[in-house]
Amino acid sequence: MGLKHRIGKIAITLAMYDDEERDALQIAEKDLQVCEGKVGSMNMQKVISAVETAVKRSGLIREDVYRETHALYHAILEALEGVTRGQLAIGEMMRTVGLRFAVVRGVAYTDKKEGEWLAVAFYGTIGAPVRGLEHEAVGLGINHI
Amino acid sequence: MGLKHRIGKIAITLAMYDDEERDALQIAEKDLQVCEGKVGSMNMQKVISAVETAVKRSGLIREDVYRETHALYHAILEALEGVTRGQLAIGEMMRTVGLRFAVVRGVAYTDKKEGEWLAVAFYGTIGAPVRGLEHEAVGLGINHI
Amino acid sequence: MGLKHRIGKIAITLAMYDDEERDALQIAEKDLQVCEGKVGSMNMQKVISAVETAVKRSGLIREDVYRETHALYHAILEALEGVTRGQLAIGEMMRTVGLRFAVVRGVAYTDKKEGEWLAVAFYGTIGAPVRGLEHEAVGLGINHI
Amino acid sequence: MGLKHRIGKIAITLAMYDDEERDALQIAEKDLQVCEGKVGSMNMQKVISAVETAVKRSGLIREDVYRETHALYHAILEALEGVTRGQLAIGEMMRTVGLRFAVVRGVAYTDKKEGEWLAVAFYGTIGAPVRGLEHEAVGLGINHI
Amino acid sequence: MGLKHRIGKIAITLAMYDDEERDALQIAEKDLQVCEGKVGSMNMQKVISAVETAVKRSGLIREDVYRETHALYHAILEALEGVTRGQLAIGEMMRTVGLRFAVVRGVAYTDKKEGEWLAVAFYGTIGAPVRGLEHEAVGLGINHI
Amino acid sequence: MGLKHRIGKIAITLAMYDDEERDALQIAEKDLQVCEGKVGSMNMQKVISAVETAVKRSGLIREDVYRETHALYHAILEALEGVTRGQLAIGEMMRTVGLRFAVVRGVAYTDKKEGEWLAVAFYGTIGAPVRGLEHEAVGLGINHI
Repeated sequence: MGLKHRIGKIAITLAMYDDEERDALQIAEKDLQVCEGKVGSMNMQKVISAVETAVKRSGLIREDVYRETHALYHAILEALEGVTRGQLAIGEMMRTVGLRFAVVRGVAYTDKKEGEWLAVAFYGTIGAPVRGLEHEAVGLGINHI
Repeated sequence: MGLKHRIGKIAITLAMYDDEERDALQIAEKDLQVCEGKVGSMNMQKVISAVETAVKRSGLIREDVYRETHALYHAILEALEGVTRGQLAIGEMMRTVGLRFAVVRGVAYTDKKEGEWLAVAFYGTIGAPVRGLEHEAVGLGINHI
Repeated sequence: MGLKHRIGKIAITLAMYDDEERDALQIAEKDLQVCEGKVGSMNMQKVISAVETAVKRSGLIREDVYRETHALYHAILEALEGVTRGQLAIGEMMRTVGLRFAVVRGVAYTDKKEGEWLAVAFYGTIGAPVRGLEHEAVGLGINHI
Repeated sequence: MGLKHRIGKIAITLAMYDDEERDALQIAEKDLQVCEGKVGSMNMQKVISAVETAVKRSGLIREDVYRETHALYHAILEALEGVTRGQLAIGEMMRTVGLRFAVVRGVAYTDKKEGEWLAVAFYGTIGAPVRGLEHEAVGLGINHI
Repeated sequence: MGLKHRIGKIAITLAMYDDEERDALQIAEKDLQVCEGKVGSMNMQKVISAVETAVKRSGLIREDVYRETHALYHAILEALEGVTRGQLAIGEMMRTVGLRFAVVRGVAYTDKKEGEWLAVAFYGTIGAPVRGLEHEAVGLGINHI
Repeated sequence: MGLKHRIGKIAITLAMYDDEERDALQIAEKDLQVCEGKVGSMNMQKVISAVETAVKRSGLIREDVYRETHALYHAILEALEGVTRGQLAIGEMMRTVGLRFAVVRGVAYTDKKEGEWLAVAFYGTIGAPVRGLEHEAVGLGINHI
């Protein structure tokens, strides 16, 4: 079995690169659904909400189907593990995040039986609630949908 | 205070993109020390070792200075949090990884007082110990050095 | 050494089954103290509080004895690990729970020296804060008291 | 949206009750696929393997479809969170488990769009590697498949 | 309710100070049972075993009573959380420990109903498996017994 | 490489002992910068803030240098792992802390290349939000600075 689309790599690229850089990379997005956004907060609930809302509004997942919400939720949490590195908490631990996110949905494997998969990527900064006292952070979550 | 070099973005790019793609991106690596490598294992210890050995051989950190080993070790662990998403374990949890890594060291902030920082990035796959039963994974750890 | 009462199984049964089903099972509750209740919340503190309050009101533990509160507290937390699976958080992670709980106290082992033990069980649902977007969850904590 | 089958409750019941008790409960298993087994080990990898092997042999999931292996794997891990309560480790923490497990697959919600779901349940003991120095443990993991 | 003996402080002091320093401190150990030892390992199981064996040999807990083993086990694990800070693992994470430990058992509170409590303390070093590439670590676990 | 100052031991001693006891111990604080304080809260953010504020006011770290804030932040979190033992949360888990803390900065190793290190120590109580229903807790975090 091989990979048809590296949806994780594509999601990270979208979250991390600006338009000009993306053009240079010629990311193959055909056959894939994509949703992007930004969120800055000390509140984990708001970060999760920002992604869920953007994804539902864009029609990337069906809002009334729990299995799609469930797949997305776990992919978001896994991506946040990479951002928070050890404890899924932001404000409670006296830190704040400023993140760009990208969600990619589509056929990831060459074998048709594998169906659709979902990638959630974050790129941005995490740090003290003081401008500049922060460093970069990245996270990626993948799930079947 | 501003960022001079996005060492995290550069490390992720090096771990994730091939030569041709990198050329397109024109990553500014001047003033930065870089070390790259690959590791595939069910053993976390071997993954940590592979990065430490590559970094020490390349001269990116001074082997006999504990504070540099200490900075690197914690950056590796933080990057592995993103790869493992929730439990810092691989084989014990019946999974295996195939990863490319990149380590970047250099001045990250415009303010000279900030000195040098270190970024460790992983990109590859994690999954069952059966070829193909795997998906992508990413991790980034940043530390002052 | 053998088990006299499977207090964990009894607690799970009480949290999971309705009266009719319990009658069919003929659960041996003699010699055991039992306390039951319900709680729905996005707030972990309220879930812990609901169990502690119910238990203290029922007289199952002595409110003024710290060692009993301490035993109960750790049994509740261990049961919540099963409910939350990985992060002891509810609302912070944008999810809510609706749980029935049962606490059982009594002699669990045939050897008298083992004294009394405590079981805390939860059964119910966990999911998005939208009715229906949820699945089942179970947790069990056991401690000596 | 309502629940059609409480697959979590059914899985826990199968893992926890003997034939006689199950008869009394009249568990509705029609329309559901079920797989049961036992495993005792200090090795987490063996516990995961025992469930995966039993499930694949029974045909409950398709061995060559990664999305089904992926769904099962995460449901097993979530169930083990309830068993291990805080650290996904057994032998490394000087403890051993003796577990019965049940896996249930089927339509869990009344709304057809929700498709199939999977429940993995464990019931048994966890404790020191000395017979009798152990107490009960329970775990439940649920995933869409 | 007040504290009669600060068993945690006493345990830390025993693990951290040499004879001469202890004399200066005039630690009140009367009415308390104490057990001390040393262990160096990359293997968490060996660290737990070393404490359990020392404690059982010294008669501080009754070997054949599970509730005492259970109380000790959880106090050891809690103390190891302080030593390992985030992941209960040593060798798997490519690190090693060299620790002195002290276990104190006795009446900790002025109120007789509180009965006996147990404190487990570790003090020593944690670091890379290379002599000198290490820093100090401390941990304390307390439980009712 | 040897240790010049046991900054962890010194920090724990300062957090745990009163003046009279310290005099008996004759702690060598020369060449070291020291900062002490107290904090009681159900709010992790306030605990972190209390230490950061005390340290910055005392001049032990340079407020405008992120690498020093970063080093301190991680040392505080590691010390709190010892206090909270498993979950970096206080109020969310229905518990409260009353802590004394000490931060020590200075040359810890005999080899000059190792530069300065930082130790953060907590000693106090953790427990239910009811006076007396609490036990002792200790934590130590060490970082290069």
